[in-house]
Amino acid sequence: MEEIFVPFRGIKNDLKGRLLCYKQDWRGGLRAGIRILAPTTYIFFASAIPVISFGEQLERNTNGTLTAVQTLASTALCGVIHSIIGGQPLLILGVAEPTVLMYTFMFNFAKNRKDLGEKLFLAWTGWVCVWTALLLFLLAILGACSIINRFTRLAGELFGLLIAMLFMQQAIRGVVEEFGIPKRENPKETAFQPSWLFGNGMFALVLSFGLLLTALKSRKARSWRYGTGWLRGFIADYGVPLMVLVWTAVSYIPANDVPRGIPRRLYSPNPWSAGAYSNWTVIKEMLKVPLLYIIGAFIPATMIAVLYYFDHSVASQLAQQNEFNLKKPSSYHYDLLLLGFLVIVCGLIGIPPSNGVIPQSPMHTKSLATLKHQLLRNKLVSTARNSMQKNANLSQLYRSMQEAYNEMQTPLVYQTQRALGLKELKDSTIQRASSSGYIDAPVDEAVFDVDKDIDDLLPVEVKEQRLSNLLQSLMSGSCVAAMPLLKKIPTSVLWGYFAFMAIESLPGNQLWERLLLLFTVPTRRYKVLEDYHATFVETVPFKTITLFTLFQTTYLLLCFGITWIPIAGVLFPLLIMLLVPVRQYLLPKFFKGAHLQDLDVAESAITYNLSFEDQSEQARVTNMDSGEILDAIITRSRGEIRRACSPKVTNSTQSSHEEMKPVYSPCMSQRAYSPRLMEIKTQRNSTISSGKD
Amino acid sequence: MEEIFVPFRGIKNDLKGRLLCYKQDWRGGLRAGIRILAPTTYIFFASAIPVISFGEQLERNTNGTLTAVQTLASTALCGVIHSIIGGQPLLILGVAEPTVLMYTFMFNFAKNRKDLGEKLFLAWTGWVCVWTALLLFLLAILGACSIINRFTRLAGELFGLLIAMLFMQQAIRGVVEEFGIPKRENPKETAFQPSWLFGNGMFALVLSFGLLLTALKSRKARSWRYGTGWLRGFIADYGVPLMVLVWTAVSYIPANDVPRGIPRRLYSPNPWSAGAYSNWTVIKEMLKVPLLYIIGAFIPATMIAVLYYFDHSVASQLAQQNEFNLKKPSSYHYDLLLLGFLVIVCGLIGIPPSNGVIPQSPMHTKSLATLKHQLLRNKLVSTARNSMQKNANLSQLYRSMQEAYNEMQTPLVYQTQRALGLKELKDSTIQRASSSGYIDAPVDEAVFDVDKDIDDLLPVEVKEQRLSNLLQSLMSGSCVAAMPLLKKIPTSVLWGYFAFMAIESLPGNQLWERLLLLFTVPTRRYKVLEDYHATFVETVPFKTITLFTLFQTTYLLLCFGITWIPIAGVLFPLLIMLLVPVRQYLLPKFFKGAHLQDLDVAESAITYNLSFEDQSEQARVTNMDSGEILDAIITRSRGEIRRACSPKVTNSTQSSHEEMKPVYSPCMSQRAYSPRLMEIKTQRNSTISSGKD
Repeated sequence: MEEIFVPFRGIKNDLKGRLLCYKQDWRGGLRAGIRILAPTTYIFFASAIPVISFGEQLERNTNGTLTAVQTLASTALCGVIHSIIGGQPLLILGVAEPTVLMYTFMFNFAKNRKDLGEKLFLAWTGWVCVWTALLLFLLAILGACSIINRFTRLAGELFGLLIAMLFMQQAIRGVVEEFGIPKRENPKETAFQPSWLFGNGMFALVLSFGLLLTALKSRKARSWRYGTGWLRGFIADYGVPLMVLVWTAVSYIPANDVPRGIPRRLYSPNPWSAGAYSNWTVIKEMLKVPLLYIIGAFIPATMIAVLYYFDHSVASQLAQQNEFNLKKPSSYHYDLLLLGFLVIVCGLIGIPPSNGVIPQSPMHTKSLATLKHQLLRNKLVSTARNSMQKNANLSQLYRSMQEAYNEMQTPLVYQTQRALGLKELKDSTIQRASSSGYIDAPVDEAVFDVDKDIDDLLPVEVKEQRLSNLLQSLMSGSCVAAMPLLKKIPTSVLWGYFAFMAIESLPGNQLWERLLLLFTVPTRRYKVLEDYHATFVETVPFKTITLFTLFQTTYLLLCFGITWIPIAGVLFPLLIMLLVPVRQYLLPKFFKGAHLQDLDVAESAITYNLSFEDQSEQARVTNMDSGEILDAIITRSRGEIRRACSPKVTNSTQSSHEEMKPVYSPCMSQRAYSPRLMEIKTQRNSTISSGKD
Repeated sequence: MEEIFVPFRGIKNDLKGRLLCYKQDWRGGLRAGIRILAPTTYIFFASAIPVISFGEQLERNTNGTLTAVQTLASTALCGVIHSIIGGQPLLILGVAEPTVLMYTFMFNFAKNRKDLGEKLFLAWTGWVCVWTALLLFLLAILGACSIINRFTRLAGELFGLLIAMLFMQQAIRGVVEEFGIPKRENPKETAFQPSWLFGNGMFALVLSFGLLLTALKSRKARSWRYGTGWLRGFIADYGVPLMVLVWTAVSYIPANDVPRGIPRRLYSPNPWSAGAYSNWTVIKEMLKVPLLYIIGAFIPATMIAVLYYFDHSVASQLAQQNEFNLKKPSSYHYDLLLLGFLVIVCGLIGIPPSNGVIPQSPMHTKSLATLKHQLLRNKLVSTARNSMQKNANLSQLYRSMQEAYNEMQTPLVYQTQRALGLKELKDSTIQRASSSGYIDAPVDEAVFDVDKDIDDLLPVEVKEQRLSNLLQSLMSGSCVAAMPLLKKIPTSVLWGYFAFMAIESLPGNQLWERLLLLFTVPTRRYKVLEDYHATFVETVPFKTITLFTLFQTTYLLLCFGITWIPIAGVLFPLLIMLLVPVRQYLLPKFFKGAHLQDLDVAESAITYNLSFEDQSEQARVTNMDSGEILDAIITRSRGEIRRACSPKVTNSTQSSHEEMKPVYSPCMSQRAYSPRLMEIKTQRNSTISSGKD
């Protein structure tokens, strides 16, 4: 994306690009069939649970003026509109923590003003929303999102980690509070006797850790050894919602022995209770707000606009990272414009507005990559099986697979990226087959292992469509009606879920991985290279990595510290935006250009991690058979051109590798590979073939 | 061991064998240096914690006549004597659950007799011990232990799993009881109000699961990625005791907010309190026991003798399984004789006798295998590094390593097994090097990777010595003095520890592994083959495996059920001894001889698992780098001759493998290897060498 600040140009381009694929956005979603429910449910829980919790927080802070009903309504309304007429349907909208903080601040300001008070609070926020929307329109029209490219990995990952820290902080704070008496409650109730408080707190520990550990385990179910494939797939897809249910059920086990209120559960008014409707007609009150306050509303509006501009764009960016190989275009400007409209709508009906959320948006893309992988895989496996039954030879097999693959692709006019096909991999496999003389023989499982080889062939692709976003928004909306059911969820399960979300967002974040690297002894650092596919470990001196990581960590802690300051804290995004000039002008003074580029590449190299149901690399290796392990080693070496060129790796083995060459097929030199890896393999092979029996 | 029932022959043979290595038993232990403390502490905790817990149980059941002081004293006394003059120093002695059950039964019998009563209870048990000892002498002298060989894997593993189940049962029961009011306590105390009971129970859940999960994690510390090698080694060696300390410390966190008695802690009288000494002088009372009861004591004595004969021998057998490659001889007969003496001594001073315990005895051997592995490894690594600095070539390197290895072996006259050397492996490596032309070049890290290749060279060996057993017994003894400190351990930490012991005893148990296999989908079963090295998966039809496992499981559940019957339950070993004729005469009618042999081989094939700090295979693979993974694959294929011969594996790949042959070094055909594995490797290698860059 170029940086053009011609008015409307950005919006026009976005609209043009997205309109071309609009029809496919729906058709693709509908074609996925029932499987679309897996990412939908996953994201619905990730989106709705924090929104409900923020609603509770808002209710405490605004004396019940705004509740979970309003936050859910906003999330559902904005989500539905965005999923239908929004630009990038991968972006998930929701009421986020900064919004809650801003609304709390505005409430505290309004309630003490004589001519405003609690009564006109929502009307005043209506004006704030109007101003915010105007500012957002301005930003969108002027093409402010063009500079999104300057938000490098450095800023994006720092922000991602900060959000994870905030989620984790909320989880810890939540559990600690389970040991105390909640503010709005009557401290004389039985449940608030010291003994029951202690029991409640301990029960909360059990429930939250139970949820956290089982949810993390369930995400890895696909690679479990036990149970049928169907069961494992089901648990991997729906394990997290399932665990919320299970631990909610567990929370009822001691129901007879404990007083009401233990464990504590979600608190929210029924949506059909009297008070829950006061906000919807706020538009009638808006003209009652004194002029001075209407003008003054501009001040919080600037803060919210900056916040939304940043959050919305970064969430969208993180959902569209290069490693996802997205094929449909981005839509930053148009989405910001639409956000402006959504903010006005929310303001006029007195609900807090929603914006793009992290980590839900990247989680959404990841879960859709898993879905696409499964769909492609199933199709290709059945095609390959078919061909093999017909005694096809290897080239026939690949031809039919390529056809099936192309069929799944629905050639797009708007395709922006180089099409990733099976061709290159097919060539190599045919070459390997021809060098071993099978080329014309019918293919059997020995030559082409359907289950394993197809996983290898598939590039990362994302099922880009609008259905999952629409469905999850509708589900959030239905939560309003399901409030009596939601109230059965213990708050401690919520805290466990917050911790789960924080941990789920870590893998793939290079800042996090570099932090871990600092705690790895030198002899084991090469493992990081192999696991995370992080080229910088070889190209950048460790001292520089350390320095860079320490700088980033300090900055992160600074941002985290800022969030603790009551009102300025809301503006922590400003500090992150400050990273753009810091990266461009300050950092090059301390680090070499090449090093900076390696440490801050926009493209991540963890591509192949994502295709495996976004479980951590570690989990994958755990359950691999030998074939899979070898696959994984090879997969990792893909694109690792730097490794082959790194003198410190090859020096010692260069000569031996030259000598070994003739042993292998002649196509060896056509490809960049890692000589060290080759070396190991060669040695092992001779070990296997010699020696005792 | 032949089955000769010539009186005294067995004892004589045992003594002869063990005397030859007696001096080395001590010297070897002392030479290990400070490292001997790792297995010592590990076993001390595994031995002392259950003994303390059984002591508590005994105290409740005998109205305080016997306490943890007496059980600890017995464990320490018998342990010290056995470690000094016993035959097999790998065997760990302790007061076990069956002993507690027998003593409880005898107490209930005695207390209701007018002419016996609580007062003469210990004197009467003295007589029971005398009779028991006489029976044990008889069994030892007549060579009853000769039939130990008929206890096949079938019986041993069933017994091992039963013990694990009993430990787990105790853990679960213990945690559940934390929610209730303990029997002997005053139910009116604050700590026993319903609210505090609930809090105490929940706290117990937190503490026990906390200990269980962290202890399991800490055992795998050596393969962690983070932290220095020293720290990881320390945590792996001392993690379990450390975790008991940590969770005991955690249990004091809410000390100010909770009443005394929450969480519940170990209860035992101080050893210097008045009541604790009554038992030591019981010998003076023994003649006061009426003659009828002295004769009647023969009845419980037979039961205890059968129990001890079985327990002691099986514990010893499990500690000396073939996969440990022990070099020093066994000593079943002499050890049973010695046990007789120990029983008399214990009886005369009024403490419950100790016998060989499971799972502690095999745990002891495993931890010593880890120790030996480390010692050998360190020695060879430094030797290899030295040679490489002197620019030695590969054969010089191996020569010096072989010398260092021999030095560590202290050639023994009593060596019963074929000496395992580095020779065979050395040959293969030299061959592989010569085929690639390095043979005369100075060795560098590319040819011989010191850290990794040495691990591959080392066979499983056990540091067989007496020091660790002596030290752990002395430590148990010092527990009596440290009782005030021990009382700080919460009982819930104990239950977590019981669960930990149950889980630690599972890996390597083929019955357990076959049970898991039943829950594995057919396509993943081959993974079991690779992980557990279990040949039967390929040689025995799955239906037969299922049938055999179901039979064994039913039998196991039957044994478990029997333990629930109040007094007959003590005799569950009889049911297990019944397995000997069942195996010999009944099973061959239902299963083919060859299948039975494969399913019930005395030798386990999991050899190489044990050398890696007895962590589960899964954990090992998790943190391996590519080299290690390849090593592991190769290691697994060692000795897997059956695999290569199994037609169902080779059929499809036979032709291709023939064609591939010339590509590899000529020594290939000299070794049994898995063609399927070879096949995969070949394919992958060509994949790596061809294709896109």
